[in-house]
Amino acid sequence: MAPTLKLAEYLLQRLVQLGIGSVHGVPGDFNLTLLDYVEPAGLSWVGNANELNAGYAADAYARIKGISALITTFGVGELSAINAIAGAYAERAALVHIVGTPPRATQDGRVLIHHTFADGNFIRFSQMSKHVTVAQASLRDPSTAPEQIDQVLVQCLLHSRPVYIEVPVDLVGVPVLSERLQKKLELPEPVWGSLQENAIEAVLEKMHAANQPIILVDGEIRAMGIVTELQDLTKKTGWPTWTTGFAKGLLDETPSNFHGIYRGKWEEKVTRDFFQGADVVLCFGAHFSTTNSWGGTSLPNSTRTIFFSDTEIRMGSQIFRDVPQRQALSALLRTLDTDRIQRYEDYPKLHQDLTVSIQETDQSGPITQDKAWKVLATFVREGDIVMGETGTPGYGAREMRLPPNTRLFTPVTWLSIGYMLPAAQGAALAQRERSAGKKAGRTILLIGDGSFQMTVQELGTIIKENLNVVIFLINNDGYTIERCIHGVDEKYNDVARWRYLEALSFFGGDKGAYTATARTFGELGEVLADERLSNGEGVRMVEVFMGKEDAPEGPLKDLIEAQRAKKKHA
Amino acid sequence: MAPTLKLAEYLLQRLVQLGIGSVHGVPGDFNLTLLDYVEPAGLSWVGNANELNAGYAADAYARIKGISALITTFGVGELSAINAIAGAYAERAALVHIVGTPPRATQDGRVLIHHTFADGNFIRFSQMSKHVTVAQASLRDPSTAPEQIDQVLVQCLLHSRPVYIEVPVDLVGVPVLSERLQKKLELPEPVWGSLQENAIEAVLEKMHAANQPIILVDGEIRAMGIVTELQDLTKKTGWPTWTTGFAKGLLDETPSNFHGIYRGKWEEKVTRDFFQGADVVLCFGAHFSTTNSWGGTSLPNSTRTIFFSDTEIRMGSQIFRDVPQRQALSALLRTLDTDRIQRYEDYPKLHQDLTVSIQETDQSGPITQDKAWKVLATFVREGDIVMGETGTPGYGAREMRLPPNTRLFTPVTWLSIGYMLPAAQGAALAQRERSAGKKAGRTILLIGDGSFQMTVQELGTIIKENLNVVIFLINNDGYTIERCIHGVDEKYNDVARWRYLEALSFFGGDKGAYTATARTFGELGEVLADERLSNGEGVRMVEVFMGKEDAPEGPLKDLIEAQRAKKKHA
Repeated sequence: MAPTLKLAEYLLQRLVQLGIGSVHGVPGDFNLTLLDYVEPAGLSWVGNANELNAGYAADAYARIKGISALITTFGVGELSAINAIAGAYAERAALVHIVGTPPRATQDGRVLIHHTFADGNFIRFSQMSKHVTVAQASLRDPSTAPEQIDQVLVQCLLHSRPVYIEVPVDLVGVPVLSERLQKKLELPEPVWGSLQENAIEAVLEKMHAANQPIILVDGEIRAMGIVTELQDLTKKTGWPTWTTGFAKGLLDETPSNFHGIYRGKWEEKVTRDFFQGADVVLCFGAHFSTTNSWGGTSLPNSTRTIFFSDTEIRMGSQIFRDVPQRQALSALLRTLDTDRIQRYEDYPKLHQDLTVSIQETDQSGPITQDKAWKVLATFVREGDIVMGETGTPGYGAREMRLPPNTRLFTPVTWLSIGYMLPAAQGAALAQRERSAGKKAGRTILLIGDGSFQMTVQELGTIIKENLNVVIFLINNDGYTIERCIHGVDEKYNDVARWRYLEALSFFGGDKGAYTATARTFGELGEVLADERLSNGEGVRMVEVFMGKEDAPEGPLKDLIEAQRAKKKHA
Repeated sequence: MAPTLKLAEYLLQRLVQLGIGSVHGVPGDFNLTLLDYVEPAGLSWVGNANELNAGYAADAYARIKGISALITTFGVGELSAINAIAGAYAERAALVHIVGTPPRATQDGRVLIHHTFADGNFIRFSQMSKHVTVAQASLRDPSTAPEQIDQVLVQCLLHSRPVYIEVPVDLVGVPVLSERLQKKLELPEPVWGSLQENAIEAVLEKMHAANQPIILVDGEIRAMGIVTELQDLTKKTGWPTWTTGFAKGLLDETPSNFHGIYRGKWEEKVTRDFFQGADVVLCFGAHFSTTNSWGGTSLPNSTRTIFFSDTEIRMGSQIFRDVPQRQALSALLRTLDTDRIQRYEDYPKLHQDLTVSIQETDQSGPITQDKAWKVLATFVREGDIVMGETGTPGYGAREMRLPPNTRLFTPVTWLSIGYMLPAAQGAALAQRERSAGKKAGRTILLIGDGSFQMTVQELGTIIKENLNVVIFLINNDGYTIERCIHGVDEKYNDVARWRYLEALSFFGGDKGAYTATARTFGELGEVLADERLSNGEGVRMVEVFMGKEDAPEGPLKDLIEAQRAKKKHA
């Protein structure tokens, strides 16, 4: 007899092999037996307050540790999480969504069980999930289950997108062959031959000929696993480098050739001229949604750009298929002769993000969005994770100069308000696991009141897990980002008024947990200087009051000013 | 020129005509202009904390007022709500889900806008919604939009199930013909001819011949609009009548021929014998999910039952198609000659729900599930809505004797934990609108700690709206219903420990709002006698402590005892 183990053990051991340390999710009657195997497999069970939050947390955990797992129950649980799965798909987080389903006999017998529409249909929800996952496995047969599991996990890693695995209750403890576990999962290596060599030759030729070459880095480089290589490329070439909002925080921001986010229409003229005047743009990890490209105004000139994607290289009308950016970048780094490329001695002084010290503000004046984010940047230190929720904090966070080895979460494409608080739980937990015993960096959450309300209960999990999280709750009395877009004075952009600082106590925190209020820059300065905030343990929270019609410079401010002008005119 | 009005005005005026007074939802960039028209149409905008909660609230509102509306934004908003829409489908709540979508030009141009997967695909989310709605309309053309709207609204009412309407931003203010608005929407009348007359004849024949006839009423009678007619039928016949959990609260519980829920395997022998010994069972509004049928043990004998559904009458192997129960029941009431049917002089004394006074409990003893619900039933008065969340409160609520004109919400089929708190917002609001100026009945929410955590932020909306809601928060330290099913001692059935009674203050309530704690029956008695609780304004909250392994008599208790026995044996 070949050695076997239980199906649940197989699945969970694969997750452990991939580096997952904690599993997010919520118990439900069709996943309880599966949960019995989580801790024995060496995994921690988080136990979130609801499934949408669990999905958000798992998404963020995956962005820090590379991959994550989420366990929900059939129907009610999985559908509650589906918006988070969609977000992971849109922004490429490798999330394994495991759904505990009714026993096979119940499904085959079309029993009118709860968590269905009482119509005998058991495949409706998996069909819905197909729209938001890159691969699916409906486990029904122990002889094929291990291979099915492996296949979807490989797809999850390869595309860095969510996958969906259905585990019927009665299959959880069934023996499966353990043989495949001996070999770790590996991504398929792409074919590398003359076609690929020719592509690299063509790229090098363009690089050699370039007079004003630049590099533009977008956020999919993380999903593609080429962050370190890109850091090498920017260092080796010394070429002026920009990122998008999605990529900000992935590269070291301190070198002189790093110019932060290219902000398109909202960029200074000297920078815009230089960026648009480039004769060659190397572009990696492109993800050109409107939000991530400043309404399309920050896109590089497509005729002069070499786009590296996970499947091809594109130069103008020329497309080299089947040359993934990971292998292409390795080949470039291997073969690039820096003597043959443009070595800038100097070039115009271009925009770089800077911090603003509290001394440069009006101490007794209100906290205004033009300076607040640059002041908050002084609070950030190496190893932190900064999370700017969709809304003014997300736009503001784009302006923050970050120390090395800092990660940033900011609105990219999915923009689901409510994401960032549970995401802070997932990110902080992943960060703690990565720091392996040493004191973990802080997770700094910048979040508006409207967003905070959406998913607030996950504070309970942050408290329960005693995660190192600092929350700056921006109280500007409603959905300011929506006010910018439309309805500046409309009641529908108001939110219920909560006593925000009571949150830590309500959700079970230590009665002495640090909380503070800041209404002026002076108060904000005092708070930021407080040791209990900067070096405390567990969750700390600051309520920062800002004007309800104030927004960071850029698209939001322009939108709200256009509305004001229109109103004045009317 | 024929008279026109704006598309949004057309849609919203239709909702007003159908009796909707408030619209649930959350603002988002693609629905803001639509929201501009809500209050001018004479509708209130609720503004929920998140979309799932808004969906739950709209579901409950529809169950009280007959129909409801929910407005969300494209992608992120609608997917967050989709689990609530599925629940409305499963349990037949008529919910109009209106989604604000990107402008037509953006969609046609396949722009890589936010709230998409940045792949130019704009139909993914509507395809997902098809699985959980009974009709859909993608509005694209002002000349067809009014008719499209009318068609889906008719389907919504006819099936009492959710529908889905997409409104692109740029279509909101476009003129459409107003002509159709002159005529109120009407449900199509079914054809009534000899086939239908024959069916009624056949039913009457069975009714005349019956020696031991009974009536079983299930919850879909509400969706089918035949509650009053059924009340008449039970009165006119005097036949012993039972309901399911789904139907409990729809009929007057005080007549002597009303015997509460038929509890199948868990019923007293005398009742079980009588029910199973019936030679004719008239069954209306059947919805036989496992939860609603006590694991299938409360189903009537199918050979002796006449099933009335929304499309047909079934008697054994005989099926009369196209005889909807609404028309069939009217015909029966019209033609039934009570001299020709069994008029029970007396029959065995069968089970009836009773209350337990606080004096009948051990005053200094812990609050136990065997008596707690029957004690809480003494608190309920005519006009109240009682909501028992999935978990021990939902099972417990099934035992509560209810005064006339009381409505009950209890676990039926979808069983999405977290539903009941936002549902209390929706139900209480609908109740207030129905009472039209007079003091509205109370909405009494019975909810466990695990469920409470899932959707707690909707308390902020209940407070903001100043709704008359009394919350009994059952603190039994985790998911007791899951402990009953599996993992009685497992950590994954624990939840974070919150300071529950601080909720009212945190969510912005009056600092003097009534809160109390009850750990013994004596304390519970004092609380129930407190005028501030029974006749107060706004939200009041009582934290009731119960044992973490205690459950109401019935399936849950049997499950947990089976686990205990197994553990002892091991």
